[in-house]
Amino acid sequence: MKILVVGANGTLGSAVRNELASDHEVISAGRSEGDVKVDITSVESIKAMYQKVGKIDAVICAAGNAYFGPLNELTPENNEVAVQSKLKGQINLVLLGLDYVNDRGSFTLTTGIIMDDPIIGGISSAMAGGAVRAFVQAAAIELPRSIRINNVSPNVLEESMDSYGPFFRGFEPVPAARAAKAFRKSVEGAQTGQTYTVY
Amino acid sequence: MKILVVGANGTLGSAVRNELASDHEVISAGRSEGDVKVDITSVESIKAMYQKVGKIDAVICAAGNAYFGPLNELTPENNEVAVQSKLKGQINLVLLGLDYVNDRGSFTLTTGIIMDDPIIGGISSAMAGGAVRAFVQAAAIELPRSIRINNVSPNVLEESMDSYGPFFRGFEPVPAARAAKAFRKSVEGAQTGQTYTVY
Ligand SMILES: NC(=O)c1ccc[n+]([C@@H]2O[C@H](COP(=O)([O-])OP(=O)(O)OC[C@H]3O[C@@H](n4cnc5c(N)ncnc54)[C@H](OP(=O)(O)O)[C@@H]3O)[C@@H](O)[C@H]2O)c1
Ligand SMILES: NC(=O)c1ccc[n+]([C@@H]2O[C@H](COP(=O)([O-])OP(=O)(O)OC[C@H]3O[C@@H](n4cnc5c(N)ncnc54)[C@H](OP(=O)(O)O)[C@@H]3O)[C@@H](O)[C@H]2O)c1
Repeated sequence: MKILVVGANGTLGSAVRNELASDHEVISAGRSEGDVKVDITSVESIKAMYQKVGKIDAVICAAGNAYFGPLNELTPENNEVAVQSKLKGQINLVLLGLDYVNDRGSFTLTTGIIMDDPIIGGISSAMAGGAVRAFVQAAAIELPRSIRINNVSPNVLEESMDSYGPFFRGFEPVPAARAAKAFRKSVEGAQTGQTYTVY
Repeated sequence: MKILVVGANGTLGSAVRNELASDHEVISAGRSEGDVKVDITSVESIKAMYQKVGKIDAVICAAGNAYFGPLNELTPENNEVAVQSKLKGQINLVLLGLDYVNDRGSFTLTTGIIMDDPIIGGISSAMAGGAVRAFVQAAAIELPRSIRINNVSPNVLEESMDSYGPFFRGFEPVPAARAAKAFRKSVEGAQTGQTYTVY
């Protein structure tokens, strides 16, 4: 399959690429590096990416930012980072990518454990995850041409514990390579509308 | 208690007002009518409302719009209706209202059954509901001064079946008065971070 991985050079995205590269043709996309450049916070940039890439069998998004900080520092303005990136960025990849995905293709988006198991400072990211999960479940019943959609919700990644560790005290980190398997399940399986938790 | 009800003249909001008015001082807010006017899609308008209303014990939001239409007509632009209104509008009522809510006060937001049980045309509203639910769960662990937060997710309302009926074939409508009880539970109870489903 021809698989577009957005955020392919990130911690999660590079594990997803490693998982899939031996069996599939992976096209990597990212803001600063990749086969194609894209900024998912821009509708125009997403459109340009799809025009450049053309028809594909699967779109995976492992990109998405959010402001991390305690509630008393969360404002309408810094909450906007997650709204534009992790939330609308991922959703717009679906809305604008539909015509580029082949019959029986798929979309796989990324959420995360804090939408189920909140941590201090993670409100904005949790909000975006909840939106994406509900979007996925609702879009699944309407996608045409047997196209499927799922999301993968990893626990904190082992590879990220140096930076995120203090926020995730007592959580059980998972290797990015384990989370990557759920993306393979989504791409090669037949399920749709699912949230694959890797907790 | 002094309770601010945003969207107090809507189908759900007027039932919430009826439920609470005999025991509490209800301040009604809405876009076109109410004790105070507010447009929740505007940060400035929300700030002005709180400045006018002053200290309160509870904030209820029963307002929030979304574009309804099939996936093939959903665009980044019309998805923005729900992002601005049902999603960010409700969340900004919390972020900007924190300093106005008394100790042991509460916020109660509104979601809806389609975030759990999707219907054709409801993707954008489901997305907003999922965001609000996750926000509520995450904010609950950080709210100061024993302030609580919950959301109420009603089934389609009996009073709305004339207009929404064709979208909700086979659903079991609930009276708005029944959904209103869950808002009382949220305001007068002690729970936080909950989604009260009225299905
Ligand atoms: N790391 C964890 O422990 C963990 C756990 C659960 C869930 N997640 C979720 O997994 C996703 C990826 O996390 P990560 O830790 O792998 O992040 P990361 O290492 O920072 O990688 C993110 C990747 O996405 C790209 N990217 C960021 N913003 C973009 C934009 N606007 N447009 C296009 N590409 C963009 C980045 O490219 P540039 O570097 O060029 O900007 C980078 O390649 C996030 O949604 C995160 O919340 C992560
Ligand atoms: N009706 C149902 O069957 C049902 C079921 C489940 C969940 N819900 C949810 O419940 C909420 C209310 O639904 P409803 O049927 O009661 O709606 P509604 O009858 O249309 O009432 C909405 C109320 O909110 C106000 N409002 C709308 N946009 C606003 C804004 N930007 N700023 C301030 N006020 C605004 C409206 O005032 P104006 O008229 O002045 O604009 C109106 O009073 C929505 O989130 C809806 O998704 C409804």
